[in-house]
Amino acid sequence: MGEFLQVVSYQEAIARLKGKLKPPGEEQCPLIQCRGRVLSRAIVSPEDMPGFNRSSVDGYAVNANDSFGASESLPAFFQCIGEVAMGEVPAFSLNTGACAWIPTGGMLPAGSDAAVMVEYTEKLGEDTILVYRPVSPGENVMRRGEDISSGEELFAAGHMLRPQDIGLLASLGISWVPVYQAYSIGIISSGDEIIPIEVAPRPGQVRDVNSYSLAAAVEEKGHKARIYPLVRDNAAELKAMVETSLAQNDITLMSGGSSVGIADLTLDVLLSFAGAELLFHGLAVKPGKPTLGVSIEDKLVIGLPGHPVSALMMFNVISHQLFPRRKDFYINARLTQNIASQPGRDDFVPVCLSEAAGQWEACPLLGKSGLMSILSRADGYVHINAVEQGLKGGEICRVYPF
Amino acid sequence: MGEFLQVVSYQEAIARLKGKLKPPGEEQCPLIQCRGRVLSRAIVSPEDMPGFNRSSVDGYAVNANDSFGASESLPAFFQCIGEVAMGEVPAFSLNTGACAWIPTGGMLPAGSDAAVMVEYTEKLGEDTILVYRPVSPGENVMRRGEDISSGEELFAAGHMLRPQDIGLLASLGISWVPVYQAYSIGIISSGDEIIPIEVAPRPGQVRDVNSYSLAAAVEEKGHKARIYPLVRDNAAELKAMVETSLAQNDITLMSGGSSVGIADLTLDVLLSFAGAELLFHGLAVKPGKPTLGVSIEDKLVIGLPGHPVSALMMFNVISHQLFPRRKDFYINARLTQNIASQPGRDDFVPVCLSEAAGQWEACPLLGKSGLMSILSRADGYVHINAVEQGLKGGEICRVYPF
Repeated sequence: MGEFLQVVSYQEAIARLKGKLKPPGEEQCPLIQCRGRVLSRAIVSPEDMPGFNRSSVDGYAVNANDSFGASESLPAFFQCIGEVAMGEVPAFSLNTGACAWIPTGGMLPAGSDAAVMVEYTEKLGEDTILVYRPVSPGENVMRRGEDISSGEELFAAGHMLRPQDIGLLASLGISWVPVYQAYSIGIISSGDEIIPIEVAPRPGQVRDVNSYSLAAAVEEKGHKARIYPLVRDNAAELKAMVETSLAQNDITLMSGGSSVGIADLTLDVLLSFAGAELLFHGLAVKPGKPTLGVSIEDKLVIGLPGHPVSALMMFNVISHQLFPRRKDFYINARLTQNIASQPGRDDFVPVCLSEAAGQWEACPLLGKSGLMSILSRADGYVHINAVEQGLKGGEICRVYPF
Repeated sequence: MGEFLQVVSYQEAIARLKGKLKPPGEEQCPLIQCRGRVLSRAIVSPEDMPGFNRSSVDGYAVNANDSFGASESLPAFFQCIGEVAMGEVPAFSLNTGACAWIPTGGMLPAGSDAAVMVEYTEKLGEDTILVYRPVSPGENVMRRGEDISSGEELFAAGHMLRPQDIGLLASLGISWVPVYQAYSIGIISSGDEIIPIEVAPRPGQVRDVNSYSLAAAVEEKGHKARIYPLVRDNAAELKAMVETSLAQNDITLMSGGSSVGIADLTLDVLLSFAGAELLFHGLAVKPGKPTLGVSIEDKLVIGLPGHPVSALMMFNVISHQLFPRRKDFYINARLTQNIASQPGRDDFVPVCLSEAAGQWEACPLLGKSGLMSILSRADGYVHINAVEQGLKGGEICRVYPF
């Protein structure tokens, strides 16, 4: 039997991959296409927002001083000298005792510092307005720069842009945004028994699952997947395909037969490239022990287990840390039963979530590790740390949704 | 002042929208492009998986009976009569006392019903194998149909496809998948003060935020956004643009000036179409009271508040229920402070999440409702039901991430 050469913890494996992963390129993206993209630089506001003192109500712009003491029984009298039009700079200014109609969003005229809601006013004749409540300076007004001030950092580099972030950038006139380029990720499935999914399998053959599930998982993380034709368990064919993928991609994901002989074949092929460096071979995790990492010059190759469930779980676990995109919203859930685990090994156990009395419950999906149906019944996974001996039923655990 | 004609609860509003929304169309999608798409029909497995009795270890296929009683001190003797090749149907069958080498994933030969792990065997001479542990029938074997049986429902209609689901479909050879067509959603921003984002605003003008944030939010929900040119507050222009959008889309989102006169203009324009029916005008929610819904024949128009924060919050709240896509993974979090709320109204309050002692804390983002910066600092929102008077600091609340 082949032996694992460099079994490491998964944290160590991820650290080694991170150390070799070249930083992503940068590009300018039109704002309208930025959803889900990750900022390559911090964004600083180029201007104040609002850019002018803006009324937040429909009513009358006034100088607050003039309203002091106004009450239901003794309203203040104002002379209405005009109307502020939306989107226009008022052509007039207010002297003592004057007011002007202002719509929500309108610009306060010079001489005013507050707005009175129309509900607390009454029109008396052509241009006399009664005000029944005093306002304080700044009341019902969004002051220039109150929301965002010029020079303020809006987002740090690494932030993933959501619809609301795109709205904020639009409001500041930022129409092109510096974002990281997606990594290009090649996917090579190999194995004498693996056939294209359109082909009817003879007994003993299985369809190519990994090309599909890994490509979708790569795209889910915002990167570009490139699927290569299936390769048989043959060193020359495998080497040619890896060579092509190395030339065309930043990262290559391989998934081959899970039996040890085949894994050795993959490793031999990878290490035969000039500049190849073995990062790890064997992980202290379940599932996914046969995972391997090799760097070849500035490219990375990750050899995933052949079994589709293990391959996808390992890709999720690795990519979660290699390509972090936003706050890591795990879900706290009560575990429905004990999960045993071997100390010294990190376990990742798929779970199904359900609601019970306003709380999430996580039901571990155990059973034979080969069951394909497990992953599609899973809503996420729990991580049992290498120092733990398992998790107890009834405990609150963290579920990472996938 | 204009009056709201049909103020309803937001649940009622969503029910009325759902009642008028035409069911989505259906299309066949190539499996490789199905990520995030929603199944329009249940998917039933066309075959057993695995399709043959498959070894889950590297070792020897045997008849379990022949291993009974085997132990370290008294191993069972087997005659190795061949080797199972991956992807091939074994050309031989096993008689009593015979075994065959089998790799993980290999097909069990006729006459065998279990596999012995290689670790518990020893090779003695050319074709004699010692087995040091007994196996029971079915041990280390995935039986035909054990994972999935032919005719079993894999997914219900309405399920959103994730990478693991795509993997499962690939494993069964399902290369085209029936999915719902995306809705086509037109977006019309209006207002005399609204300018394209590339233009430098004069004082009093504001840039068009809603076209950008709503388009991104529509795409986040898996639908297609079509942005129309900005319209001024003019009935004829507005009507012409709505007419275009009605012809080209299933749903039209409008967001106009938040002042009452402008909202009336929108409503008048919408109700002037033949077949227009007012579904609601005014919602008992905060923010988003001025939201309105109109059906025009089989098309829906949703008039959102003009303010970008309210518009996006309302779109999130409505679309969350109008276009549900998968399990609703709210996050339980401890509220950092009281949130007051008015009974009789549903409040949606943006919150920021942070971790404290392994638990999520939700900090409400209060302050002036007009602040654009609030939404991009928010990680989600909490919903305060109309029957509640608010939420108390320290309570566990549900946060809906966005």
